[in-house]
Amino acid sequence: MRATVIRGPQDIRVEEVPDPALRHPGDAVVRVTHACICGSDLWAYRGVAAREPGQRIGHEFMGVVEAVGAEVASVAPGDRVIAPFVWSDGVCGYCTEGLFTSCPHGGFWGQPGSDGGQGEAVRVPFADGTLVRLPADLPAELEAPVLSLADVMGTGHHAAVAAGVRRGGTVAVVGDGAVGLCGVLAAKRLGAERIVMLGRHEDRTAIARKFGATDVVPERGEGVQAVLEAVGTEDAMRTAISITRDGGAVGYVGVPHGGSAGVDIRQMFDRNITLGGGVAPVRAYLPELLADVLAGELDPSPVFDLVIGLDQVPDGYAAMDERRALKAMITF
Amino acid sequence: MRATVIRGPQDIRVEEVPDPALRHPGDAVVRVTHACICGSDLWAYRGVAAREPGQRIGHEFMGVVEAVGAEVASVAPGDRVIAPFVWSDGVCGYCTEGLFTSCPHGGFWGQPGSDGGQGEAVRVPFADGTLVRLPADLPAELEAPVLSLADVMGTGHHAAVAAGVRRGGTVAVVGDGAVGLCGVLAAKRLGAERIVMLGRHEDRTAIARKFGATDVVPERGEGVQAVLEAVGTEDAMRTAISITRDGGAVGYVGVPHGGSAGVDIRQMFDRNITLGGGVAPVRAYLPELLADVLAGELDPSPVFDLVIGLDQVPDGYAAMDERRALKAMITF
Repeated sequence: MRATVIRGPQDIRVEEVPDPALRHPGDAVVRVTHACICGSDLWAYRGVAAREPGQRIGHEFMGVVEAVGAEVASVAPGDRVIAPFVWSDGVCGYCTEGLFTSCPHGGFWGQPGSDGGQGEAVRVPFADGTLVRLPADLPAELEAPVLSLADVMGTGHHAAVAAGVRRGGTVAVVGDGAVGLCGVLAAKRLGAERIVMLGRHEDRTAIARKFGATDVVPERGEGVQAVLEAVGTEDAMRTAISITRDGGAVGYVGVPHGGSAGVDIRQMFDRNITLGGGVAPVRAYLPELLADVLAGELDPSPVFDLVIGLDQVPDGYAAMDERRALKAMITF
Repeated sequence: MRATVIRGPQDIRVEEVPDPALRHPGDAVVRVTHACICGSDLWAYRGVAAREPGQRIGHEFMGVVEAVGAEVASVAPGDRVIAPFVWSDGVCGYCTEGLFTSCPHGGFWGQPGSDGGQGEAVRVPFADGTLVRLPADLPAELEAPVLSLADVMGTGHHAAVAAGVRRGGTVAVVGDGAVGLCGVLAAKRLGAERIVMLGRHEDRTAIARKFGATDVVPERGEGVQAVLEAVGTEDAMRTAISITRDGGAVGYVGVPHGGSAGVDIRQMFDRNITLGGGVAPVRAYLPELLADVLAGELDPSPVFDLVIGLDQVPDGYAAMDERRALKAMITF
């Protein structure tokens, strides 16, 4: 089959790789119908996050089950499915509590030895603990909204949950990427009354407004109960903490690149600011968010502003890196 | 009157200072009957926290109201009262929410221009928003337990609340000072089933066991849902985060001295660890904890292992600095 690999910084290629096959009785093989490029893939693209040359890449996909192992009970060949950005066994203590990202048997798509999402097919370990079945008659117009639940929408939701977004409350969002924008949508969905988006790029702030942002400001504001940090730089964390109201919380989901210098612990101490969040347990949120998407009540699809085929994946990385595109969807 | 002043590092003196007098209609003057020396006073004593030469010191006291301004409604001359370690107006948005430590009119006892707690009397701004009345017939044996509510017991409780201590849960406490020990007591009071104290000093771990610690270990353990950080060094924070179970929380109340290097943001991200806490809004907890002390159900007084008069305050600082004493109570 053909799949995306990363050969080095700025060197993304689509290559012929071995077809995936069942290895364990809990495995499934999924033929990918839709995938995407994530803002976090750009850290690897830029050489900031290390990758082995030739490693697969991509961690967001949906598709059709092609084969299942003897122990798989929840999905069958022909089923449409979506995967969260990590696999998980579904039965350990952490999975039972909903913290699927801490599963001791879990892993990240594209890690050495596994398939990535940006390819024609994927071997899915622990299919019962990982995949979520989609309706067979999923309308075409809901494919993009559903796809967003593999990562960005679930991650934005996690930021909002960790920041303690409450009905009637005020929220600020740091980061105008797809996750930050989904954070706006999540805050709106959770009942926030005022949602302040920090951003300057008109094409992105337009989506923020569409998603429910009531205020768009270029610079830091002040005194917001719940702040969503969706960037991952020290500077974004510094901004997030500084605009949080005393006694409030920062929900952070930006993958930290850099150290802890942005976490001003003395300021947090003096003002009783809570810092929560982390890698989003998207699998836990999938059923709830999927129900809203299927009901037509949640539509994060405006974050996909570029649709490409597998061959154009290298161009998709370049477009996102140069901020010409917000988020690329790959159709097969 | 006579009061404790700090002239410089290791230079604590008891000096003659002006008698306090009412300045504003909301003021009260309190004659101090009991005060104490706090572990956080040692940061000033050691020269780590800057103080102006001659500045007053001490922020934990109880006493008898001597005079009140025209607007004071909640206390009257002759009333026994206790003060939390900061004053607050009691009516602003933050005070109304219980975050008295963020009151814009608030201040810390001993800050330039104010009286400190380690003296014969104190002018109390915003007496209605600050003081809590005690029973006129407070038994002598409850004076020490009540005094602990001015800071250490309320602060230990804040750590436990911020760490999300739950009934039946497991808690670890980093820091074997008076606040850490009160954190053990708070965790026990909140229903924790297993309480692990990290400590080596037998005299202190003996109090921890008395307060409800089920395990005393010299080194870091692993995998605890709620961790109380009651030291304030980078190393203590590093330990606290590393022993928190994925998805758990650190409640920190150790005044941060040093930077954010102990906050391993990447580890927190990967394991979804929440960091909460800060300067304890002790005034908010006073009514609830006082009720338990008066009912004989809460007794943090074993943290006072040294009782001195005002003249011995300099010796009290030295004894605590050299870890010969855990916490000194000053009686007048």
